[in-house]
Amino acid sequence: MDNFNFYSPTYFVFGKSRENEAGDYVRKFKGTRVLIHYGSGSVVESGLLARVKKSLANAGIWFTELGGVVPNPRSGLVYKGIEQCKENNIDFVLAVGGGSVIDSAKAIAIGALYDGDFWDFFTGKKIVEKALPIGTILTLTAAGSEGSSGSVITHENGILKRATGGEVLRPAFSILNPELTCSLPPFQTACGATDMMAHVMERYFTNSKRVEISDRLAEGILLTVINEAPKALANPLDYDARANLMWAGMVAHNDTCGVGRLSDWSTHQMEHELSGLYDVAHGAGLAVMFPAWMKYVMKHDVMRFAQFAVRVWGCSMDFQEPENTALEGIACYEKFVSSLGMPIRFASLGARAADIPVLVKNLGLAGKTLGNFVKLTEEDVTKIYELAV
Amino acid sequence: MDNFNFYSPTYFVFGKSRENEAGDYVRKFKGTRVLIHYGSGSVVESGLLARVKKSLANAGIWFTELGGVVPNPRSGLVYKGIEQCKENNIDFVLAVGGGSVIDSAKAIAIGALYDGDFWDFFTGKKIVEKALPIGTILTLTAAGSEGSSGSVITHENGILKRATGGEVLRPAFSILNPELTCSLPPFQTACGATDMMAHVMERYFTNSKRVEISDRLAEGILLTVINEAPKALANPLDYDARANLMWAGMVAHNDTCGVGRLSDWSTHQMEHELSGLYDVAHGAGLAVMFPAWMKYVMKHDVMRFAQFAVRVWGCSMDFQEPENTALEGIACYEKFVSSLGMPIRFASLGARAADIPVLVKNLGLAGKTLGNFVKLTEEDVTKIYELAV
Repeated sequence: MDNFNFYSPTYFVFGKSRENEAGDYVRKFKGTRVLIHYGSGSVVESGLLARVKKSLANAGIWFTELGGVVPNPRSGLVYKGIEQCKENNIDFVLAVGGGSVIDSAKAIAIGALYDGDFWDFFTGKKIVEKALPIGTILTLTAAGSEGSSGSVITHENGILKRATGGEVLRPAFSILNPELTCSLPPFQTACGATDMMAHVMERYFTNSKRVEISDRLAEGILLTVINEAPKALANPLDYDARANLMWAGMVAHNDTCGVGRLSDWSTHQMEHELSGLYDVAHGAGLAVMFPAWMKYVMKHDVMRFAQFAVRVWGCSMDFQEPENTALEGIACYEKFVSSLGMPIRFASLGARAADIPVLVKNLGLAGKTLGNFVKLTEEDVTKIYELAV
Repeated sequence: MDNFNFYSPTYFVFGKSRENEAGDYVRKFKGTRVLIHYGSGSVVESGLLARVKKSLANAGIWFTELGGVVPNPRSGLVYKGIEQCKENNIDFVLAVGGGSVIDSAKAIAIGALYDGDFWDFFTGKKIVEKALPIGTILTLTAAGSEGSSGSVITHENGILKRATGGEVLRPAFSILNPELTCSLPPFQTACGATDMMAHVMERYFTNSKRVEISDRLAEGILLTVINEAPKALANPLDYDARANLMWAGMVAHNDTCGVGRLSDWSTHQMEHELSGLYDVAHGAGLAVMFPAWMKYVMKHDVMRFAQFAVRVWGCSMDFQEPENTALEGIACYEKFVSSLGMPIRFASLGARAADIPVLVKNLGLAGKTLGNFVKLTEEDVTKIYELAV
């Protein structure tokens, strides 16, 4: 087991109707002037935004608002939000939405305390050391941004999708009401399940040895998603399925299952180029890229893939030919995400084999490698994209 | 799944040699005048205390010290520590030791900011709302106090063992170096493993329905202890076994596996009376009490015990007679803790059947019931103690 730090200070407020406590929690974490940040009209139409505002007003908290976040959130709205914060002396950013809204709120929270261009933090030019405190009211189970230290923003040009992270980006509080996810359409529910599984798997496939505790926690999260996602699709109003998925999505990405090991993230980065170029749903892109990556790197550690197959998918161990078991696990994964309605090939995403050189170039490896489980060269990445075609 | 709050803000610093960073973390959490609290001479003899002091001195932090904490920590030393804090304007309490030391430090941290008798917080007369910030350097994997919100203190009279809890008792930081546990004798290692399993099981056996995520996380922790504790006993210097146990002990009790469900704690409370009366090791008392409790309450939810047997102990499901599977799971638990060297009957603890009325009386039920999975009357509790004889 490797040395590590683990820090997940977010106050999680989970369950039915708990968005009505938003004002109390903003106050608990010293917010007095709030920017409410959200996406499309659905939070308005559902009445959620009105309930949140009422809660803030009841707590005597001043607020202004900024809507319009889109999936794969853009830098343009972030600049607008930063300006709004500075003009209004905002001291707390409250995101009402899914991962895109939260990531956008985190970027605003960074930029509000910085005189330069917030994009500096996403290109690696600057390190995130301070940000306004953030609260979240989650409406979509997927990205795990409600408990994570990261943010992913797509530049206004629509092609460059870049991530940053820092301790101060962990939300002060996050309100998770599973009822708010019961109206999610099947495709988004499935994308969310795929995304949270990917967050676990990017940590699971590691070269760190003897990490039984984080292996077992990771397997527990995957088993939960495998059990609950089909129930949420079969019956969208199944509160308990939504609740189990919602918490699984948080622990999948607050690093509960990543302690003591080196994680990978190459599949996420390869997917970011896909959704940067084609604006596809992140979960759908992951469903396409993960099997390709797994097939390509499997031989690097067959026994780890066999463990994945046996413990997560309940495959029988082939003691003579462990590779058969490993392959069976990958096939189970592919079959599962496909059963959720996810694409598993380039074509279904609208991606084209002819663009692979562009995707590879946008990764910006420039002679460096990608990932940790296997350190991938541009040639490796090209072959993985080809496996996904 | 029930509504819940989850808050585990402790900054965990895990791995080899990390106690040398103690000064940095005290400073990170604004400590300037520190009380270092510890137990017996072993932290002195091992050189650990000297390393910690050096780290504090290097960070320019003033400190004083108070040793002498005993297992089942007593109120007497707590009073002394409170006085020492007040006399020296202490603003941070640093516990160097196991659960007893940390619990004693927490009690001191409460009392240092209170004008009355700190015991008021342990009798339920007062609610914990403020305390000095606490840091821990853990030397014994068991109690989970390094990440928990609780503290258990035994009154100086040696009979009353009482618990309290509160958000502010979560340590600001906890340094977990598994190397420090490699010198633990087998009995203490086994007691620790038993204690952390109990922390999981008190949460596992619940009437809350559809809590798959916390079930799976709980099972993952138990599977880890089952895999790693025998390795640590077979080879005390097995760093990775110690490391997996150390982190398992933390997640077993910071409520990671308790979300969305009502937990029980009746076995812990019945054990507290045993260790209050006989001063037995907490883990050993739990090894005796848990099977007795399980056998007594099993019929309340046979399928939950069958799940425990199948998922945790790998038992085959008896679909005709699930009760057989449930019983097999209990037998597996009993066999396992016994294989670690734990007692599983009253006599091995030095406890006497004749004292059962005293144990029951000390629980102070006075017509109320104990626990949640099954609400136990004094008569039930008497029968459970009798099953443990």
